Amino acid sequence: MRVAILAHEKFPDHAKTALGVLRYADYDVVGILDRETAGNRVSDFVPDVQDAPIVSSMADLEAGSVDALLIGIAPVGGGFDPSWREDVRTGLEYGCDLISGLHYFLEDDEEFATLADEYDADVWDVRKPHDELTVAEGVADEVDAEVILTVGTDCSVGKMTATMELARDAREAGHDAAVVPTGQTGIMIEGWGNPVDRVVSDFTAGSVEEMILEKGDDHDYLFVEGQGSIIHPAYSAVTCGILHGAMADKLVLCHAAEREMLAYDYGVAVPSMQTYVDLYESLAEPVHPTSVVTGALNTYGLEDDDAREAVDAFETELEKPATDVIRYGTDHLLEVLL
Amino acid sequence: MRVAILAHEKFPDHAKTALGVLRYADYDVVGILDRETAGNRVSDFVPDVQDAPIVSSMADLEAGSVDALLIGIAPVGGGFDPSWREDVRTGLEYGCDLISGLHYFLEDDEEFATLADEYDADVWDVRKPHDELTVAEGVADEVDAEVILTVGTDCSVGKMTATMELARDAREAGHDAAVVPTGQTGIMIEGWGNPVDRVVSDFTAGSVEEMILEKGDDHDYLFVEGQGSIIHPAYSAVTCGILHGAMADKLVLCHAAEREMLAYDYGVAVPSMQTYVDLYESLAEPVHPTSVVTGALNTYGLEDDDAREAVDAFETELEKPATDVIRYGTDHLLEVLL
Repeated sequence: MRVAILAHEKFPDHAKTALGVLRYADYDVVGILDRETAGNRVSDFVPDVQDAPIVSSMADLEAGSVDALLIGIAPVGGGFDPSWREDVRTGLEYGCDLISGLHYFLEDDEEFATLADEYDADVWDVRKPHDELTVAEGVADEVDAEVILTVGTDCSVGKMTATMELARDAREAGHDAAVVPTGQTGIMIEGWGNPVDRVVSDFTAGSVEEMILEKGDDHDYLFVEGQGSIIHPAYSAVTCGILHGAMADKLVLCHAAEREMLAYDYGVAVPSMQTYVDLYESLAEPVHPTSVVTGALNTYGLEDDDAREAVDAFETELEKPATDVIRYGTDHLLEVLL
Repeated sequence: MRVAILAHEKFPDHAKTALGVLRYADYDVVGILDRETAGNRVSDFVPDVQDAPIVSSMADLEAGSVDALLIGIAPVGGGFDPSWREDVRTGLEYGCDLISGLHYFLEDDEEFATLADEYDADVWDVRKPHDELTVAEGVADEVDAEVILTVGTDCSVGKMTATMELARDAREAGHDAAVVPTGQTGIMIEGWGNPVDRVVSDFTAGSVEEMILEKGDDHDYLFVEGQGSIIHPAYSAVTCGILHGAMADKLVLCHAAEREMLAYDYGVAVPSMQTYVDLYESLAEPVHPTSVVTGALNTYGLEDDDAREAVDAFETELEKPATDVIRYGTDHLLEVLL
């Protein structure tokens, strides 16, 4: 599928979804829409993902050269910026499908719905939970696959990235591994999935379990994308629901180097790694016993020496094999996971 | 407010909401609608709540004698039974407001919406979250009130009952205490509140925090109604969100005597009381330290001797003051809570 990614004024530093899609999705990205960086290429900013031209608008891409327009940024509040309307309109007139993770659902927008109908385009609002979700039955452990869940010390520590890297490398090593996505970027990359942070709270675990049951007998390994952190004042409910819904066999603890306080100014200090290990394991135990067997440290932005030192310190504190999967690859972790 | 409670074919044993309202709400209940037990009175079945006649239908009550019709049962799935339509129609024609905790929202029912408009009746769908909910800020601990949260070993162990009994008796002892309701029955009793199990999962903690901030500076004590259990495979997400959202100063561990397996056939054994204490306390610790200071045991259905023995055993295992608040009153608990 040939995809254009809308990322106006945000590419690359504030376009996490666009970058995730460029890095991991099985899409052919034919252009990034960013009126601020137009004229450059992706490779001018980010060396290690697929390259594509950056253009000002959808009209700069040729009709017939794009199959879908993907909204690759998520503004605070998840609203639709009126300045994007012309691009979406043009995309629909080109017959492109829409893929969006905004809280504002494009399929409920009257103009877009009418155009989508006229040009026979599909609108996929990734963050709209489907209607059949329900409570968990506590049976995710009945699937054939070994279930591996990334859990975090905090938000934005690299759980999605670790999940994607581990699954890809496991596949490259010849294993039958699949990703169970739980957030908007993961869902866009994988092309399916429940937006676990947007479902009815009572269905949190159920929405994860449903995915495990759907894929768990078709693969040898499922890598489940974790969310938030079990001690995050705002997001722990989702984390807890994923932990109990996934009934994972093994956990990967994800952390960001030099993170001393939890994200978003909550005034909560990051406790010891052993505290996290104890919490995740003791909370999982009555439902389905599991262990943190390895760790993934995000050292983005550190110099090489500092990164190496940070990984060593993390490994020592965690008392398990650990690494930065982007900087040093996943071999060290896959040895204990597969 | 004069209220009729619809509880067809379920009163009293399967009408938890109706019983909760009869027992705790500040409503004048003028009749129970139950076509199966019609002709009896509430007092024929339940001695210790307000009495009311049981009638077959809304038409058996006089127009002008009722201010609101409350749906007092919650069928599996939360749907609206077509056989109730005539009663709701009659209620609206009487000018009664509607109060419902069904998943099926009565305000979205075309016939009821039209009638409500015509007869100037309000429709309150208790389980419909309001639109302004958002993520928690982690600031519930800034309120003046001492926050006391009931936490459970399981679903259906008496958290709502313990919350209501403790708050009522605290008020009777001269304290300024209020309830923060989190479920449909509690919300109906108190006349306000967020249905925490129905909100967007990311807003679970936020929906509790919002209530604490709303009431926390107006009272000396807030008794927060807990939900589920931190080890329940389906409902732990909501429990975790309430724990972190409420930032409680003290916890009351609620348990049901002779409960050996978690509710609803999940195949999960009830672990030791110390396991629950450790889990709730260690999970709360990084966000806002708190302790289980007392316990409430539900001994419903046991003979007096067995109940006494069960309470003693529970107290010994918990190593905190504990009792059955319905059977023996709340004094023993309020001593350590206030």
